[in-house]
Amino acid sequence: MTDNNNHGNCCAGHGGHDDAHQHDDGVSRSRRNFLVQSTGAAGALTAAAAGLPYVTTAQAEGLNGFTEVGARKHHYLPATRDTVHWGYFSKNLPGIVEAESGDFVTIETVTHHAYDDFDRMIKGDPGVEGIFHWDGEGKGVDRRGAGPMDASLFGRGAGEGLGVHILTGPVYIKGAEPGDVLEVRIVDAKPRPSGNPEYAGKTFGSNAAAWWGFHYDDLLEEPKPREVITIYELDARAHRNWAKAVYNYRWTTQTDPFGVDHETIDYPGVPVDHDTIEKRHGVLENARIPVRPHFGAIAVAPREEDMVDSIPPSYFGGNVDNWRMGKGATMYYPVAVDGALLSVGDPHASQGDSELCGTAIECSLTGTFQIIVHKEADLQGTRLEGLEYPLMETQDDWVIHGFSYANYLEELGRDAQSVIYEKSSIDRAMRDAYRKMRHFLMTTQGLNEDEAISLMSIGVDFGITQIVDGNWGVHGILKKNIFAGA
Amino acid sequence: MTDNNNHGNCCAGHGGHDDAHQHDDGVSRSRRNFLVQSTGAAGALTAAAAGLPYVTTAQAEGLNGFTEVGARKHHYLPATRDTVHWGYFSKNLPGIVEAESGDFVTIETVTHHAYDDFDRMIKGDPGVEGIFHWDGEGKGVDRRGAGPMDASLFGRGAGEGLGVHILTGPVYIKGAEPGDVLEVRIVDAKPRPSGNPEYAGKTFGSNAAAWWGFHYDDLLEEPKPREVITIYELDARAHRNWAKAVYNYRWTTQTDPFGVDHETIDYPGVPVDHDTIEKRHGVLENARIPVRPHFGAIAVAPREEDMVDSIPPSYFGGNVDNWRMGKGATMYYPVAVDGALLSVGDPHASQGDSELCGTAIECSLTGTFQIIVHKEADLQGTRLEGLEYPLMETQDDWVIHGFSYANYLEELGRDAQSVIYEKSSIDRAMRDAYRKMRHFLMTTQGLNEDEAISLMSIGVDFGITQIVDGNWGVHGILKKNIFAGA
Repeated sequence: MTDNNNHGNCCAGHGGHDDAHQHDDGVSRSRRNFLVQSTGAAGALTAAAAGLPYVTTAQAEGLNGFTEVGARKHHYLPATRDTVHWGYFSKNLPGIVEAESGDFVTIETVTHHAYDDFDRMIKGDPGVEGIFHWDGEGKGVDRRGAGPMDASLFGRGAGEGLGVHILTGPVYIKGAEPGDVLEVRIVDAKPRPSGNPEYAGKTFGSNAAAWWGFHYDDLLEEPKPREVITIYELDARAHRNWAKAVYNYRWTTQTDPFGVDHETIDYPGVPVDHDTIEKRHGVLENARIPVRPHFGAIAVAPREEDMVDSIPPSYFGGNVDNWRMGKGATMYYPVAVDGALLSVGDPHASQGDSELCGTAIECSLTGTFQIIVHKEADLQGTRLEGLEYPLMETQDDWVIHGFSYANYLEELGRDAQSVIYEKSSIDRAMRDAYRKMRHFLMTTQGLNEDEAISLMSIGVDFGITQIVDGNWGVHGILKKNIFAGA
Repeated sequence: MTDNNNHGNCCAGHGGHDDAHQHDDGVSRSRRNFLVQSTGAAGALTAAAAGLPYVTTAQAEGLNGFTEVGARKHHYLPATRDTVHWGYFSKNLPGIVEAESGDFVTIETVTHHAYDDFDRMIKGDPGVEGIFHWDGEGKGVDRRGAGPMDASLFGRGAGEGLGVHILTGPVYIKGAEPGDVLEVRIVDAKPRPSGNPEYAGKTFGSNAAAWWGFHYDDLLEEPKPREVITIYELDARAHRNWAKAVYNYRWTTQTDPFGVDHETIDYPGVPVDHDTIEKRHGVLENARIPVRPHFGAIAVAPREEDMVDSIPPSYFGGNVDNWRMGKGATMYYPVAVDGALLSVGDPHASQGDSELCGTAIECSLTGTFQIIVHKEADLQGTRLEGLEYPLMETQDDWVIHGFSYANYLEELGRDAQSVIYEKSSIDRAMRDAYRKMRHFLMTTQGLNEDEAISLMSIGVDFGITQIVDGNWGVHGILKKNIFAGA
């Protein structure tokens, strides 16, 4: 069935017309109707029905009030120039679809690195072509980043590239309010096939070893420094669980259709003119990269600022860049604004802990998510009590996410969005991860502080999530089976 | 068979008498004869024969020149007051046994935390009783640490506790010279059963949340700060693969048999008078800690100093504290002095990545190791070429170890052994891990720098080994199957 009424009060304040429109703040959006399917009768939704291999803890704890509501709907959110916001999060964005607790949403996500190889990652795919469209007349999506629309800071372009990720959404979730927790179950994550018939059955991704990478000022070979793009290929049908490199090239100054030179990768979606680069084939020819499809960025809208750079992760999730955020994982976020405003983007085919050179294999994916609201009043005594950070649950583990600053927007004051890049530190992120894991163990497992600290030292593994997103990340992994005997 | 000649030139300079003797530097050692068995005919030793589930890469690359030599011997090195050195590494220590490349050595290792519960971890075990013996007359092992014997720095005791681990050995390996690589295959790692009949079939360990832990200045509950010991029990027969907490207590000032007060855990092996502490039972009563038996410290002797604190890890290995250093893992070390002088200690039943509170479940273990020398002249073009750091190989992974300082003894000058504790940094350790992984990929996999950097970002996981050993650690894990298609 088609639901023509899925843009309720979430869109209040924005006109009902169907065309793209430009706000003063550069937030260009349109409203569309998307297919909504009923997925079954009311009643408790099983883990199997949700596509997860396990019952989430929230579900087991009876937190699924939504199961009383009625039939689940399945929304489909394609990625088009009108359904994405590029480079920022904002509480002022209208919901593109409106979902109820328990609904499923399939969300197409597109990598912002697609223009590194137009033929393989854009051509023949109307949605992606629309997003990346850029000629002398205009852009499919003008604003890219949280910066000024007139590029008065650096002259790079609208939004200044202060934030780079293409984010699909937001999804307005009815009944979600500040203080609630949003559960996002990642039911599926599939590579987006190349739309170019020449590459049928294949999916491609790009890895940029870029100026914001950990390696950039610490190179051995000439020329120094340099930025390098490596294009990877994977099997869109997932018959093969590894990716292989196709070729690489060094970034050369690219002049965008507006005539701005980009000496480095300083603005997302700049068309790379392949006549200006030198492709080297035969790179990493013996390497098979394990494929780990996941979403680098899943976010609810932050409350602190109207426009928030998409790069630094924080309490609201965002660009957490944990490669475990793929099929079968469940994320929990503290809701910060009415409707939660869930956005998904920064899709990756593969990433290692640290994301060392600045990016993963950036690769468009389509995800299916089930979204559940846990009301504040129901949280006490559950594993979600006092949740003030993005929490992951998998079949085997709880994963907490620490950052150099737990809430950099609040902690770093008025200039937080620039200052955060000067404060990057794994040491600080470890400190935050320690505190959050202690909180999780004390609040949700009923341990006292001494018990929590001992357990952390002997049974929790801390790893380096990423060291490239300004607000660096350390995650702590707690095995569920530690408490299996409880 | 018994080999009475296994103390060849390694012991030159030390008399042939059989009693403990005291050197000016406080290095007390005796010479004993240990059982040596022949383990079979000459010929290539298979992985199965070595007890490993895989063929090590060095073996596959034909680096096992030792297989031409003849029958393997199996040495047994018990832990006694005469076979351990406590709290330091030294190139001046005589070999306790002498092994040839290819030989097996079973080494008993004893945790330096055993006196946290005398009844469970010392009583009834003659070897351990001898090591920990301490009364008004003297100590089984006087020197504990690399500091002055007269305790003129802090007054804590001989060696000052500047270094804390009980290390068994060293094993002198014939033919090992600086420039060579020592391969140490961990064939087995077994918990040491309690010697107290009251606890038959059980093994115990201690976790100290101590002043050097990451948490110590960042506590919520009173009193602050505090040190807490938690005693854990595991099944000595390994029928059960998890440990459980027995009780915990807060450290109270302990007066040692020489009359020195220890307000904090500032000297290893101080007898804890259980009449002065308050045991809390029922702690972590629902938690089952996965058992991961491993050796926190496996080291060859460093070349830079005569007496080296056992705590900070470095190029020579030492207190690397990676919980993956257990059964089935193989370590490779650059040999720094003649005979390599391999020592093993700091046994752990379990640890998480970070070893957050300062210790693991510190628990005596007995390990069996096969030791292989790879001569410098044979290394070129192999995976061991240019090895200047401790490298781990497991069935599935290569693991490189980065530290805040790759070689702190050399880099930090004359006061390196104290300065290192002021320079602890995960950020720096990540930098070192990046450089080492790049080296490993470029040297041993034939990648150029751009290939290595891209691969690191998308396929290598960096984790936090430990943040409590002065020279903090970050490890990088490279899956072997990335190159399985080569």
